[in-house]
Amino acid sequence: MTLPAVLVAPGSLAAGRTVPLDDDEAHHLAVRRIPPGSPVEAFDGAGTTARATMVLTGTAVSLAIGPVTVTEPPPELVLAVGAGDRDRFVALAERCTELGVTTLVPLRTERTRGVESRVRDVTLDRARRRAREACKQARNPWAARVESPVDLEHLRGIAGVGRWLLADAAGGACPSIGSHEAVGWLVGPEGGFTEAERAFCTERLAARAVTFGRRILRFDTAAICAAVLSADRRSDVLEE
Amino acid sequence: MTLPAVLVAPGSLAAGRTVPLDDDEAHHLAVRRIPPGSPVEAFDGAGTTARATMVLTGTAVSLAIGPVTVTEPPPELVLAVGAGDRDRFVALAERCTELGVTTLVPLRTERTRGVESRVRDVTLDRARRRAREACKQARNPWAARVESPVDLEHLRGIAGVGRWLLADAAGGACPSIGSHEAVGWLVGPEGGFTEAERAFCTERLAARAVTFGRRILRFDTAAICAAVLSADRRSDVLEE
Repeated sequence: MTLPAVLVAPGSLAAGRTVPLDDDEAHHLAVRRIPPGSPVEAFDGAGTTARATMVLTGTAVSLAIGPVTVTEPPPELVLAVGAGDRDRFVALAERCTELGVTTLVPLRTERTRGVESRVRDVTLDRARRRAREACKQARNPWAARVESPVDLEHLRGIAGVGRWLLADAAGGACPSIGSHEAVGWLVGPEGGFTEAERAFCTERLAARAVTFGRRILRFDTAAICAAVLSADRRSDVLEE
Repeated sequence: MTLPAVLVAPGSLAAGRTVPLDDDEAHHLAVRRIPPGSPVEAFDGAGTTARATMVLTGTAVSLAIGPVTVTEPPPELVLAVGAGDRDRFVALAERCTELGVTTLVPLRTERTRGVESRVRDVTLDRARRRAREACKQARNPWAARVESPVDLEHLRGIAGVGRWLLADAAGGACPSIGSHEAVGWLVGPEGGFTEAERAFCTERLAARAVTFGRRILRFDTAAICAAVLSADRRSDVLEE
């Protein structure tokens, strides 16, 4: 029997502690009619989970934390995407946590400069919340991190990526990936990277072009393809 | 330069013919400020595309059809999914056309019996429209077909599927798939297939269980994983 999952602040889980629940989480439990005293599984979205008991004091809901489990961070998998639609970007953040992506980076590109397609702070907040909330449904101790928008030129330092791959219709098959290798994908916006951007990816970032077939994919579908194939190509997953 | 894409009724494209546009398509062209006389690419969603010219007669917009291209149907790829959320099902129909899925089947399962999760006619209509509209963006001549809901027991005849695969956390790696092989995936609803349903899949449909990793995926994410890995495992795509 799967316990109800509850989300708490990163770093707040320690055995014996009492952790207050925020209104959203308390509301979720109330809607599901989980009574005080019930066992739940708490996720902090930063690698720690715990058995806990729901406690009601007056009208305030908190968790009495029991045994804690710490999970090693997964191998780094970065998706840098030219996000052309805010709602799709937010929904992608949720899928990133489901698919084991560690870092989602909105890329500033030539074709995502328009005000209507620019990812702003409010969108980032929504995306971060969705990525963290997905921990519960996916039972993933690690939420995908959602970075602030960056230019291609400033991608280099992100999360120690050792190898960049470029989603590109003219590319080759997806290579195999080491079980602990930090990889990053570059996914262009609707309309694609410009020639100059593409050259930066393949020359300055030494990105290898990988195709997902002949059809034109939306940026979020291409990003999901990148995540699925990365998991598939990691030797540990293949050997499972 | 990519021509504006326009969607027309299946089977309506023949060189020399004039095809009326429906209001939605005419509106899309107007919003994009495409003037009469412009060349466009017409998709019928059933394998035929054509160069065409936009014609305005009074207030009625139609297309004068030029040279026609007929594309062979892609190899059969069926996703039978226990759809627990209507909006996610409709969005999945769009992704199916993007990813080369030929047939999307909503499965009636024990855990999708609730009125609030049942896929109904209005949902099917929306899903079919989205699947067809995705032809334009994906430049895919073939829209995914969206079937009416069926029970597991009545899946057998669907689209001549020769091999069923079962999305299952306890399964093995995704096998390779022949370039023309008709394959179908069984994807459970949130909460999974019941034991009896799972037994039906593995015994009566001889489905092989395939895992997408340790995390719990939403039905639509699992369906997308199935589509991405199927395309990846087809030998012709790998050899491209």
